[in-house]
Amino acid sequence: MSLFTDYYELTMCASYFDNKNFEPATFDLFIRRLPENRSYFLFAGLEEALQYLQSIKFTEEHLAYLKKQGFNEDFLDYLGGFKFSADVWAVPEGTVTFPNEPLIRVTAPIIEAQLVETFLLNSINLQTMIATKASRVVHAAKGKSVIEFGLRREHGIDAGMKVARSSYIAGCQGTSNVLAGMAYGIPVFGTMAHSFVMSYPKEIDAFRAFTKTFPNKSTLLIDTYDDMAGAEKAAIVAKELEAKGFKLGGVRLDSGDLAETSKKVRKILDDHGLGYVKIFASGDLDEFKITQLLNDGARIDAFGVGTKMGTSADRPYLDVIYKLCETMTPDGGFSPIMKLSKDKITLPGRKQVYRFKNGDGSFRKDVVALADESAEGEPLLVKVMENGKLSYGLPSLEKIRVVASENLSKLPEEYKALTNASTYPVELSQKLQNLIETTKFQLTKNEINGAF
Amino acid sequence: MSLFTDYYELTMCASYFDNKNFEPATFDLFIRRLPENRSYFLFAGLEEALQYLQSIKFTEEHLAYLKKQGFNEDFLDYLGGFKFSADVWAVPEGTVTFPNEPLIRVTAPIIEAQLVETFLLNSINLQTMIATKASRVVHAAKGKSVIEFGLRREHGIDAGMKVARSSYIAGCQGTSNVLAGMAYGIPVFGTMAHSFVMSYPKEIDAFRAFTKTFPNKSTLLIDTYDDMAGAEKAAIVAKELEAKGFKLGGVRLDSGDLAETSKKVRKILDDHGLGYVKIFASGDLDEFKITQLLNDGARIDAFGVGTKMGTSADRPYLDVIYKLCETMTPDGGFSPIMKLSKDKITLPGRKQVYRFKNGDGSFRKDVVALADESAEGEPLLVKVMENGKLSYGLPSLEKIRVVASENLSKLPEEYKALTNASTYPVELSQKLQNLIETTKFQLTKNEINGAF
Repeated sequence: MSLFTDYYELTMCASYFDNKNFEPATFDLFIRRLPENRSYFLFAGLEEALQYLQSIKFTEEHLAYLKKQGFNEDFLDYLGGFKFSADVWAVPEGTVTFPNEPLIRVTAPIIEAQLVETFLLNSINLQTMIATKASRVVHAAKGKSVIEFGLRREHGIDAGMKVARSSYIAGCQGTSNVLAGMAYGIPVFGTMAHSFVMSYPKEIDAFRAFTKTFPNKSTLLIDTYDDMAGAEKAAIVAKELEAKGFKLGGVRLDSGDLAETSKKVRKILDDHGLGYVKIFASGDLDEFKITQLLNDGARIDAFGVGTKMGTSADRPYLDVIYKLCETMTPDGGFSPIMKLSKDKITLPGRKQVYRFKNGDGSFRKDVVALADESAEGEPLLVKVMENGKLSYGLPSLEKIRVVASENLSKLPEEYKALTNASTYPVELSQKLQNLIETTKFQLTKNEINGAF
Repeated sequence: MSLFTDYYELTMCASYFDNKNFEPATFDLFIRRLPENRSYFLFAGLEEALQYLQSIKFTEEHLAYLKKQGFNEDFLDYLGGFKFSADVWAVPEGTVTFPNEPLIRVTAPIIEAQLVETFLLNSINLQTMIATKASRVVHAAKGKSVIEFGLRREHGIDAGMKVARSSYIAGCQGTSNVLAGMAYGIPVFGTMAHSFVMSYPKEIDAFRAFTKTFPNKSTLLIDTYDDMAGAEKAAIVAKELEAKGFKLGGVRLDSGDLAETSKKVRKILDDHGLGYVKIFASGDLDEFKITQLLNDGARIDAFGVGTKMGTSADRPYLDVIYKLCETMTPDGGFSPIMKLSKDKITLPGRKQVYRFKNGDGSFRKDVVALADESAEGEPLLVKVMENGKLSYGLPSLEKIRVVASENLSKLPEEYKALTNASTYPVELSQKLQNLIETTKFQLTKNEINGAF
């Protein structure tokens, strides 16, 4: 994955190398702002980021390709012997975070710290975006099961895997993605497709064929032709199963007015004494549709949520960025760095995030402070790599899922509203504010008003 | 990749197996409708789909996992010896297509044809979506270069690769993704980041350091502190380079009012006799912003387009589906299949798409017909696999790019407008219409009004 990077990372590194710039520098990875209808982020993607940081290596094939691109031999020799030597601090996966809070902090010779930008952003963007979106869907479902069903429209193979993982972290019960089930130990779920029903001369033949293979817990898709007729046929098959000592698991609705249909289907099932048969719904669902369905009294027991969650369709990216915040000066001191571009100002200096809690453990506010300030809250960034080596026990996926659940439960409801949520308070420490002012003043003097 | 599939594909296959259903069936992969602000699709993703279809194989590890999921030994034995034996027809990559036109048609024992659904949808969804979006961006740029710059926010590793490929097919000049450059031979481009500028005590030091390494054709990012001051410094460095016999390539703007700024920067550069220095713009661009910039008289020579193209941000998925359209009856005849779910009706029978052209070669209309009808237009679907073997010479990426360019040039302007484009006519042949009516009548009789 070492060439899975923007070309400019390599040209900048070549120039750092050429200019013998190996001074340490610190970069922050953070998210600039909340998208519309998001009020927090559920941080995910660290495990992959750390796996990448431990494995950066340029092969002969890479170097031959870069040579053809015009990079010189000295730099290619350097890349051939590249070893990542950074200290890295990061927020654990499953943590609830907010804009402008450093999520990963990399301190290394600038040539190393720069090189890893693209991969880190790619990892954190996708997984944090999906975990955040999925946590909203799970919240909307109010305790009913949510299964991740989006594989067919997620963006490629890697996304299919990471979406399954991230949405499981966020509280989904499982995924339809079998490979993700095998790779991560996530429970896998599935029902049947319309094609299965249509491949039989009659719908009820399809139901009988499927339940012959899976006599217990089958879920029958009943909307291929007409959902009411489908429900009646499912009930007939359920009674046939009962006679043999089996139980139908559920029926699935995938089209039409799910709230109204689910009520009618519930009644048909109940009228046949099939109160145990669950109603599973899918079809274009997201947190808003699920809220509407539950408000409309839908009799749905579980939701299969696909495309809109798996692509974070209402906002398929985060404003995640990776910015230089500190360099070392020739005398061994540290020089704070910030960007003044319009609307894109960044926070200078090496930083830590402190979380303050209420008496009941719920989150009260965060304070972004300088890393060497003493502060009373709980620090969110922990050391994950020291001198390029992992110094952090990677938690299991189940553990991360628990961290996420605990974090979400401690975030007060007002910050979890699906729309118009309150803004969670994130303050800057006085020392950080002072540093911003002095840095801004110095830069303005040097770069804009000064002689050059 | 054989387990990169929805769980229900496997449960359905298990049931087909259990019920000894090995009859041939035909599935169509198609896109149900145009998203808002799309008026055509630029088809891409076939090469990967065909690579997958040639390589489906269940390993011991796969079978062990499936056994734990409760699949029975007979079925697992079948999967262990699985060989894909389908005949596959498809539209070549780079073809302009429209809703409800079959793009891939798979005819095989239903158990095989069903199994491949998820992967085919995943491949075609991402790549066709991105090729379509990128073709709009390239169209908006009116001949100015577009470079794909979205790697950091594309959805994972695989998306990063496929977006580079698909946007190159659609007419982008290159990508920032170095691995895609190596893997596909796509030209790679890059400038410098704000961090590079900020890592030096003064902005002009950064410009001098970078051009020392890359004395010709460097592009300097000039908006880190103040774009006007940045332009003046770039001009100083450009003159220093001239004195040594070199030429600065360009400057990059990444924030603010790009139209106004580009005009002022152009004037600064021209006042210094630097008419050859190009202006490169990036920052939140898409086809709409580029149109606005050009309408506002922006003096921009090339566009770096990232997130919004690389995630198809205004519509990050297509309504791409894979539907059964024909099964074989016990007597060896064929039985047309269609779905009656509300708003989700599908077209029965094995089909071909015929394209009719005007005298000048431009596209006039398409007709979806039954595969065995003789029709006058040019058939779009070609045979790509016979009995599970590739029967199609996979074109090079450059060739696909030419096909795309030719297709787009033959699509009349009225169908390429970025908003409110005319609807390209896609008709159904009379025989297909007749088949729809008889199939619908039969199904309604059997499944809804009939006894069951």
